[in-house]
Parts: sequence; C-alpha cells; structure tokens
Amino acid sequence: MDSKEFREAANATIDDIITYFENLGDRNVVSTVEPGYLRKLLPSEAPQTGETWATIHRDMEGQIMPGITHWNHPGFHAFFPCATSYPSLLGELYSAALSGAYFNWICSPAVTELETIVLDWLARALGLPQCFLATGPTRGGGVIQGSASEAILTAMVAARDKYLRETLAVEAVAGEAEEVKEEREMRKRSKMVALATTLTHSSAKKAALILGCRFRAIPVRAEDGYALTREGLVDALAKCKADGLEPFFLAATLGTTDVCSVDDFAGISAALEEDGDKNGGIPRPGEPGEVWVHVDAAYAGAALVCEEVQRATRIELVERFHSFDMNMHKWLLVNFDASCFFVRDRSWLVQALSVNQAVYGNTASDGGLVTDYREWQIPLGRRFRSLKIWFVMRSYGIQGLQAYIRRTIALGEDFATALAKRSDLFEIVAGPKFALTVFRLADPKGETSLEERNALTRALYDRANATGKIWLTSTQLDGRFAIRLMTAVRTTEKEHIEAAVQTLTEVAEGVLKEARN
Amino acid sequence: MDSKEFREAANATIDDIITYFENLGDRNVVSTVEPGYLRKLLPSEAPQTGETWATIHRDMEGQIMPGITHWNHPGFHAFFPCATSYPSLLGELYSAALSGAYFNWICSPAVTELETIVLDWLARALGLPQCFLATGPTRGGGVIQGSASEAILTAMVAARDKYLRETLAVEAVAGEAEEVKEEREMRKRSKMVALATTLTHSSAKKAALILGCRFRAIPVRAEDGYALTREGLVDALAKCKADGLEPFFLAATLGTTDVCSVDDFAGISAALEEDGDKNGGIPRPGEPGEVWVHVDAAYAGAALVCEEVQRATRIELVERFHSFDMNMHKWLLVNFDASCFFVRDRSWLVQALSVNQAVYGNTASDGGLVTDYREWQIPLGRRFRSLKIWFVMRSYGIQGLQAYIRRTIALGEDFATALAKRSDLFEIVAGPKFALTVFRLADPKGETSLEERNALTRALYDRANATGKIWLTSTQLDGRFAIRLMTAVRTTEKEHIEAAVQTLTEVAEGVLKEARN
Repeated sequence: MDSKEFREAANATIDDIITYFENLGDRNVVSTVEPGYLRKLLPSEAPQTGETWATIHRDMEGQIMPGITHWNHPGFHAFFPCATSYPSLLGELYSAALSGAYFNWICSPAVTELETIVLDWLARALGLPQCFLATGPTRGGGVIQGSASEAILTAMVAARDKYLRETLAVEAVAGEAEEVKEEREMRKRSKMVALATTLTHSSAKKAALILGCRFRAIPVRAEDGYALTREGLVDALAKCKADGLEPFFLAATLGTTDVCSVDDFAGISAALEEDGDKNGGIPRPGEPGEVWVHVDAAYAGAALVCEEVQRATRIELVERFHSFDMNMHKWLLVNFDASCFFVRDRSWLVQALSVNQAVYGNTASDGGLVTDYREWQIPLGRRFRSLKIWFVMRSYGIQGLQAYIRRTIALGEDFATALAKRSDLFEIVAGPKFALTVFRLADPKGETSLEERNALTRALYDRANATGKIWLTSTQLDGRFAIRLMTAVRTTEKEHIEAAVQTLTEVAEGVLKEARN
Repeated sequence: MDSKEFREAANATIDDIITYFENLGDRNVVSTVEPGYLRKLLPSEAPQTGETWATIHRDMEGQIMPGITHWNHPGFHAFFPCATSYPSLLGELYSAALSGAYFNWICSPAVTELETIVLDWLARALGLPQCFLATGPTRGGGVIQGSASEAILTAMVAARDKYLRETLAVEAVAGEAEEVKEEREMRKRSKMVALATTLTHSSAKKAALILGCRFRAIPVRAEDGYALTREGLVDALAKCKADGLEPFFLAATLGTTDVCSVDDFAGISAALEEDGDKNGGIPRPGEPGEVWVHVDAAYAGAALVCEEVQRATRIELVERFHSFDMNMHKWLLVNFDASCFFVRDRSWLVQALSVNQAVYGNTASDGGLVTDYREWQIPLGRRFRSLKIWFVMRSYGIQGLQAYIRRTIALGEDFATALAKRSDLFEIVAGPKFALTVFRLADPKGETSLEERNALTRALYDRANATGKIWLTSTQLDGRFAIRLMTAVRTTEKEHIEAAVQTLTEVAEGVLKEARN
C-alpha cells in the first residue's frame, strides 16, 4: 500500500467511522452470530500474495462487523463502558504512526515527559492528594498501564517487596547464618496474605494467584451498602493474625463492579491505626511492615473530576494509602487502553521492578536525570498512550469532562426514578450510583420464593437482552439474581433511557403476567 | 469535536502521517531535547474549557515532535525495530473506533474468533509445529499479548502452577494432614528455580522477580556462538539439583537481544532427556514435573516466515517445548503492540489464570462453547489487536512479508561485508545474523589494551550517534564494549546502509588517528 492508496483508504476509513457513530443506534447492540461463525468464512491460511484494500475493506464490513458487539451503542448498558471520542482517536492514530517501544526516556523524551505531565494534570483534576503528583513532596507520580489488572498486580508486587524488605530487616538477628535467614524468608512468604472484599474486582485475586500468595476476601454486607467498614477490616486483620498469617496488602474499591459501592476510607484508615489488641497488632501505617492499601477506582474514579464527588467520597483521605488506579478508558472519553496508576512513592516500584540490561544503557538514564517508566511496570516496552489523554483533556477541558460525567450520572438517576414509579414491577437493589442501577423484578405482595424470583428476574433479563435494543449484565448479591443497568456511554441520551425503561416495563409485565397464569 | 471537525482533523492527520514518512530521513533520528524540556512548555494544569483542534495540532508539531526519537527513521539501527505500516495503521484506527474491552467471546465474537484464526495463519506461516495451532491435535493455540515480557510472565505463571500441581500430587502421602501438605508446598515453592542464560532478555529475570521465585542465568560462551548448549544445560541442571533446587522453567531464545544468537534446540531437548545421573535426575519431558521450555523469539521469530530460516533454526523441534512467543510489532510490519504467544496446551493457561466473577457470566462462556481470552493472559480487558494483523497479512501476503524480511537481512549482510573490507578499522564481533551486526573498533596490530579499546569503541559509538543521522546501541560481551547495528527498519534502503558505513568509517578514522597522536 503506497501513500496514495493509504490516503484514499484512510479517508474512507474516517468516513466509515463517522457513519458508524452516526447510525450506531440502528444496529443490534450485541452480535448475534453463532460460535465459530468466522472460521466458516475465512481461509485457513494467509494469502501467498497481497490483496487489495478494496477486498479487505469489503470483508471488514461483511465478515467482521456482524461479529461486533457495540460498546459505544446508546443501548449498551452492560458491564462498564469502554470509552471512545474523536480527539482520542486522533491521539491513537498519531501514536500508531510514531510506533516505538519507549521503554526509557531517550526512546522519545516527549513520550515520557508528556505522560508525567498529563498524569499530574489528571491527579489535580481528580482531587488526588499532592503525594500522588510527580511534582509532589513524596516522590510520587503516575504511570499509564494497560489495564486495572496490571495496575493492581504491579501494586501487589511492590507491596510484597516492600513488606519483605522491611520486616526481614526488623526481624534480623545479628550474625544470623544465610540458611537461617532463608528459612525465615520462606516461612514469611508462605504466611503473607493479600486482602480484598467479596465485591472487589476479580483482578485482586488474579494478582495474588500470579504472585502465588494467599488471598482472603472480607465479606461485605447489604446493610453497609456493600462497603468495607472499619469493623469488618478490624475483624479480618485479627482473624489473619489469629491464623498466623501476615496481611501485607489490601485492595479497597471506589465503585465496585457489582453495585458501585465505595469502601469506607476513613474506616479503613482507622482500622489500620487501631489499638493492636483489636486488629491483631499489625504494624501501624508508616511502621515497617505496614499494610499497603491500593485503591481500585477503575470505573468510578472518573467521576472525581466533579468536586461534589471528591467531597462525597472524601478523596483527600487516600493520602493515607499507597496507590490509586483509575481507567480513563472506561468513563473518561479516552479509548482503550489508558489505566492511570498513581503511587505515593515511586521508589517502591523501582525497587521491586528494576532489572538492568546493558543494551538499554544510555547517558540520561545512567545519570539518573530522567524517568524510565519501564521500571514502573511489568512490560519493558510501552506505547505513546499519553497523547490521546492530552488531546482529550485539552479538547474537552475540565468543564467538558465534568459535564459529560454529570450528564451520565443524571441519566442513571432518571432511570432509577422511572423504575421506582413502577414498584409493582421493579425493586431497586442498589443505586443509582455513578450511573449504575441494580434492580430485580418486584414482589410487592411477598408471595414469591427466592428461587422463583431469581428465575423471573432472569427471564426479564434474557428477554430484554433478546430484543437486541439494549444490553444489560447481571450479578448475584447474597443469592439474589439482579440486573445491572449502566448509563455512562457517551452516545446514550435521555431518549434511550426512556426507551430502555419502556422495553423493561413491557417485558416485566409480560413475565409477571405469565407467572400469574 | 463534532463529525465535521473530526473529518477535517483526521484527514489532516492522515496527510501529516504521509508527509512524516515521506520526509522522515531528513530529521535527526534521536531527539536532542534536554531532560525536562516539556514541563517548561506546558501549563501545570489541564485547561478548564475546551481548546480548538487547531491549537492542539499546532502544539503537536511544535512541542511534541521535537521530543520524538524516530523508530521508523531509515537511520534507526538501535535495539530492535518497532514496526509500522499503512495497513497496520488502518487496523489500529478501526480498533480504536470500535473500542471495547473484549474479555470474553460475547463482548465481540469477531475479536476472539479473528484472533484465533490469524494466529493459526501466523503459526503456519512461521512453520510452527501443529501443536501450537488452535486447530491442532493438542488443544494448543495462540493469544495476542501486549509484549514479550507479558508473554514470558504468563508462561512462567502457568509453568509454576503446572509444576506444583504435578509434583505435589506425585509426592503426596496418603492421609497426610493439611499442615504437612502446606509445609511441603512451602518448601517446594522456596526451592523452585527459573533458568535462562546470561544473554536471555531481562524480561525472564523480571518475571521471576514478579513471581518471587529463584532465577539462575546459565553462562553462554563466544565459542558456542553465545547459544545455550546441551552441555551447558546439563551442567546447570545438575548444579541446581546438587544445590537442592528444583528447575521448573527454562527460557530459550531465538535471536538474543545482544547478538541474535539462537539457543541449541536439539541440545536443550537432549539435555532434558539425558540420563538422570548426568542432569541431576530431573523429570523427563512428559513426566510430572518436567521443565517447561519457553522459546522467546520476540524479534527474530519474524524471520521464520522464510522457509530457509525455518530450516536453519530447525523450528520443528519446538514441538518438544511448551510455549513460543514472537512480536509482530518488531519485525513484521504490525505496529506496537502485537506479541503473539503460542502454547502447546491451552488448559495450562486456563488452569493457572482462570478467576470467575458473576458479572462476566454469559451463556456462551458458561456453556464452554467459546474461547475467553481473559483466561489466557494477565489482564482482564484487551484490545482488538488481531485486526491489524489480519490487514497486514492480507495486504502484504506471505510473499510480501518474506520479501521484506529477506531484503532487511540482506542489508545486514551488505553492512557486514562493507565493514569486513575495512578490517583496519572494524572487527565484527557477531553476525551478521537476522539483520544485526555487532562490531567494535579494530586493533589489527594487537597493541591496544581491553580498556583502551573499549574506550575507543565507545568514542566511535558516541560520535557516530552525535551526527544525528544514525542511531546505534551498544552492549558488553565478556567485558568487550561493542556496537550493535540493526538493519530491519522498513524505511531503510541500500543507500542508507552505504551512508551509515561512510559515517562510521569517517568517525573511526578520526578516532584512531587521534589515538595514534
């Protein structure tokens, strides 16, 4: 493909994309192909000689598009959103054209420096405490990772390393033989436990699996709004200690996947500061062996661009914690991937993840003049991901981002209000919170068993999804099957929420009518 | 930014990109900005109100481009390449527009299915044994990861899991108490060791750091072409066993970063099959507790599209190993990121990495009908990366890819031939191999000490890089400072190699003249 062919193909692609977004609402949200559909259409080997763009482009529309589920469809209410916006696409396009591996500063100074700067911009916009800024007092800072899963894994590796370094030094015996020290470390490693809650995202458990360390999920309760509380954490810590375990890591969540609950930051902080008799005598914050607290705000962290959300969540309290992560690619108009991960002290990452190799040596790095982000992450190479963040933050401005977040939160409230008006049909189980509402079929007369009600709610869920107009996901809360409806997609407007309510109402009426017959 | 503004901005961006590639050779390869240059130019906070594209675009050229090091510049001879091509850009563009998280099949069936299909295409094109195909006999298959570092980490996690599962079961004692079993597992974990060589990429050591397991690098020697040999591995295995360690993982390399050496696959295989008295009695391939062999072909794996490279490397032997990884984003015209990771049995990944969460449940996944790639990788979410691979393989065809690889390998040979003609100035230390030549300043009369020769070669290196016309990287081989020159960038042509030779010749003459005075 030469320049001329590329110009034509690219301009046509741009037109395709614009047309796609303009008519997105006319498509089915979820693909309806059968498993294995594509293998029937494609040859089993790559062609020997090159094909024309016209041929490839035809197959893009004819073979690929039917197999796409449209995450930016106005009726996409499943999971959390996966963002896109025009300025973000331009950033991705430039980034792909400049394609480099950017593992250290000299590999493109602009890539490293823009990342540091826009993550400081973002930290300020989210109201994060100064300690998470690269220009802050604690040598903290942010780094863009591919996903919240990578961020929590990176945090857990750094936490394990810090815990071992600190506690092995404290417990060291003068003149100790090497084998004795090794035995001590082995025993400690086998007793270390990462904590989360039963509503923490599965990435916490996966990170513990990867590290090969123990994992405990602290139960959270409906009456606490599904949040981790001071008492819950104190009990869990005491229980760990009673079982001979050493807690070194806690995943706290701002906006759980199931219900968007927010763990009680003040309570967590108090539990860690608690009188040692109560919480098992774990080291207090700041002491060697303190519990590393990571805040997973993958989705809802975006809403912190609004001051009212900063106040409501008391975001200033996260300065007592160690790391914080949010995905701009979920709810902040930057396309996948842009997981923005902040630490209070970047040396924790560098100490855990730094591995030298002669071929990467260079004057700027060796002189310690610059940041080499390869030491802040699991992979070596990395893309120029800050460019799309820069474009989006400048193109929308803080006020534009706030307006978008507020609009989508309001849509969630509209939806919940509409459901509440039909309490004969629906019961809201959680929310509306951060543009998420969780609900199930109503049982106003209290005459339906849990199993039956779950089955009816599932029927509502399956049939609503089968319309092809909307896509919802479900969850299980204390044995109750419930439906999640998220209203944070950029293309979703009031009219789409009204249509969703109408669809759900009609389906619910049908399900209940059949049940009564 | 509305559709109209986007169309204009995007079409202008396409023009920018075309102009960029057409005039790339006129720029300095490496950015010459000073550390901290960008912070002086940018505000410390994001703007409150949105800015126009014209403003942002102006700053892209004025503020960002001076800080870019051009990885696709014809004079970029550093590290390994980071690919780009026009069809790949189109794939990235569509992928960004369709932005989704794609962690399971229903999230877009086309994303999962195209990935399975194009990785089978690629496996066939590379001559990989049938066991690495999704349609092969062993339930193997490929998955696209972000980088070779992620791939080797994923392999190592799966290997650890498999090793523990197999050996703990074999060694289990009937009626064993839970504490005894735990103690056994703890001791085993503390004795497990991952093996690599002194020229294996640093990502192997980093993966071991992340897992918290031991790591040993087996020395490789110049006289063996810097390859791991049968004897080297047998000795290392025996030494591990003598030290009470349990080897569970070996990273073998096809194309090391320093010199592009290829570990001896037949020798590795023979060492693992060796009489137990010699190699410490490790379990043989196929037995419980066998050593997992991962082949890191991140860069040079691309050359396997040529049959002559398949024959020369005896690629069919990798069927005895467990996993294989190569980055299309290095030398196969797909822009970063596209690390193609193949396993012989996908259940090894799923068993190690599967974590369920109610919200991700769906009929297709729960029924086991489909592949959910989230269970084959560390992150949950993932981009639509197979699209750019599909576009590139179709647009170039296998013959187009072969022609590109052969052309760039030939450029490396041209370069080495030119250096060899000036044996008064240059000594080739390794290569030309896979478009990489490693050399240092000559010492034809044998009158220079190692230190002095290293200093002179470093002077050659620094001054050649200071011209701004080419960018080279260096390495250390047995204490010898050496320069690497890689000729695999798409834009590099014969004339650029001739120019590089001329630059190096002039600089080397100057350095030697000064040294003699």
